[in-house]
Amino acid sequence: MDAQMAAPVTMRSTSSMMKTLNRLSCYGKHGVENYLMGKCTSNSQEMVIIKDTNVQVGHRFKHFDWFHDRLLEKFGAVIPIPGLPEKQITGRFEFEFIEQRCSRLQTWIARLSQHPVIAQSEVFQHFLHFTDEKVWKAGKRKAEKDEVIGGFIFNVMLTPPTELSVQTIESSQDEFGCFVRRMDEGIRNITSTIHDFDKSCTGGVARELQRFGKHLVEHAEAFSCSGYLGEVNALVMAMQHTGKTFKDIGFLFSEHPKKDWNSFMELLLEYKGLLACFPHILQNHKAATEKLKECDKCVTANKMTLLEKETVNKRVDIMAYAGG
Amino acid sequence: MDAQMAAPVTMRSTSSMMKTLNRLSCYGKHGVENYLMGKCTSNSQEMVIIKDTNVQVGHRFKHFDWFHDRLLEKFGAVIPIPGLPEKQITGRFEFEFIEQRCSRLQTWIARLSQHPVIAQSEVFQHFLHFTDEKVWKAGKRKAEKDEVIGGFIFNVMLTPPTELSVQTIESSQDEFGCFVRRMDEGIRNITSTIHDFDKSCTGGVARELQRFGKHLVEHAEAFSCSGYLGEVNALVMAMQHTGKTFKDIGFLFSEHPKKDWNSFMELLLEYKGLLACFPHILQNHKAATEKLKECDKCVTANKMTLLEKETVNKRVDIMAYAGG
Repeated sequence: MDAQMAAPVTMRSTSSMMKTLNRLSCYGKHGVENYLMGKCTSNSQEMVIIKDTNVQVGHRFKHFDWFHDRLLEKFGAVIPIPGLPEKQITGRFEFEFIEQRCSRLQTWIARLSQHPVIAQSEVFQHFLHFTDEKVWKAGKRKAEKDEVIGGFIFNVMLTPPTELSVQTIESSQDEFGCFVRRMDEGIRNITSTIHDFDKSCTGGVARELQRFGKHLVEHAEAFSCSGYLGEVNALVMAMQHTGKTFKDIGFLFSEHPKKDWNSFMELLLEYKGLLACFPHILQNHKAATEKLKECDKCVTANKMTLLEKETVNKRVDIMAYAGG
Repeated sequence: MDAQMAAPVTMRSTSSMMKTLNRLSCYGKHGVENYLMGKCTSNSQEMVIIKDTNVQVGHRFKHFDWFHDRLLEKFGAVIPIPGLPEKQITGRFEFEFIEQRCSRLQTWIARLSQHPVIAQSEVFQHFLHFTDEKVWKAGKRKAEKDEVIGGFIFNVMLTPPTELSVQTIESSQDEFGCFVRRMDEGIRNITSTIHDFDKSCTGGVARELQRFGKHLVEHAEAFSCSGYLGEVNALVMAMQHTGKTFKDIGFLFSEHPKKDWNSFMELLLEYKGLLACFPHILQNHKAATEKLKECDKCVTANKMTLLEKETVNKRVDIMAYAGG
């Protein structure tokens, strides 16, 4: 699958993560709160067959931005939708930067295409099979009118009928929360260590090996000016060769990360993007169990019928099953 | 050849180099000035056959100190006598430090034994074949009474009869001076680069590789607490193994200099010691050519006979030949 950026794009100053925070609120029209209380029903029967067409689609960055917004709205309550590759802080040549961002956007879309629900969604297929402007605009309007977004996504989900206890749900929330925190911590540690190691190799070690090589070559020249009548040429040549070899080794050290760590670092960056989504998803799940406890109290206080409460209970179960 | 230190020794606070500076003055009783002006004649016919006896001699550091003083007095005007291995600035464990100093003293004496004039000298043989205290003291007294020291060493030298021009002497002084400066500069550059490289490897790189390994092992634990029902054990074990291997590689990096650079650094230290002697030797040689020019003026001013001047000239030639 290939998604190409057509031209340099204008960068946004707000981060996708901040957007995630705002979009995934439990409350508001499409919030989990309204879903749990049955404030919206949907008769949508979405079903899209995934097709790998190998079509090359040329998208501008603003298309990605729009697409990310739709995915976040529609699936963000249950599926981790990683943020778009961000503007880099450290200054790079424009070309190198654009190339890197293109590659990260391709990784981003490839990751999403692996998710069965996302890959089969209409909006994903629309984005992937962009052909002409007219078709694009029609699909865009349709996607923007979609009502099955936010917490309401759970309305279109079919889950096993077995009821789950609040204890079971909460214990798996805790377990998963702990896993996410440890994964996040681990990836942060590994990333920072590789960053330091990379700096040591491309900075110190590479520079020092090249400096050592340079000094050896210079030192060889000292011998050639010694006025010594013996066989000096072989020594000078050997030292020059050794010096050159050390310079080459230094150069290999400076080039090494490009061929080794960089792809690993890109993978960690992807993981980081995915992990950043879970706290908000977990927050929704926790809000759901809290709501259920609240409903229990309402039933005791005769403010809610048992049947009403059981409907909420079923909706919470659907969320729990959806959360895996 | 083996020279062993019998016990921990008291360190001197003054450096050997300072001593060299004071000892190698052109002036004073045994200075080059007095030699050139024929203020001392000697009928000594020193001749010592070098014998490799493989005798192990146990010397205290003060014996080395005394021996170094004798060599400097006797040969310092013409042969580079490197300073004794110094007290280290950076704190080390006493044992490690003593072991290193012992090894450096052995290198020091091995280097001197390679010089034909020094190796054949009475004082060297005396030092090398130390047996009992009585013999030692007799030889010590004899060496201390030696009159063929300082500039007077040139009195016992036989050189080719061909006269040398002041221009020839001065040009080879300049050439050698340039070589010494460039060697010194080169060795300083190489030493400082290796020092930095060593720090990068044993510090940064070793630490970061070990940290990376540690984080991988920790990250493996995150997976084992994930609650994921699939095959996690193989992944955890692979990550633990990889982490351990990175720790091991980090350890190898920290141990590396001991097995590689250290012996090279010791050799550079030896070179440094030898090179430090040349400026003073060159100074003596330059003083000699200056004296010769002064004598030329004296002859013109009728303050010196041509015969007297030619005697000085011969002595300067001997020095030039001795300087190689």
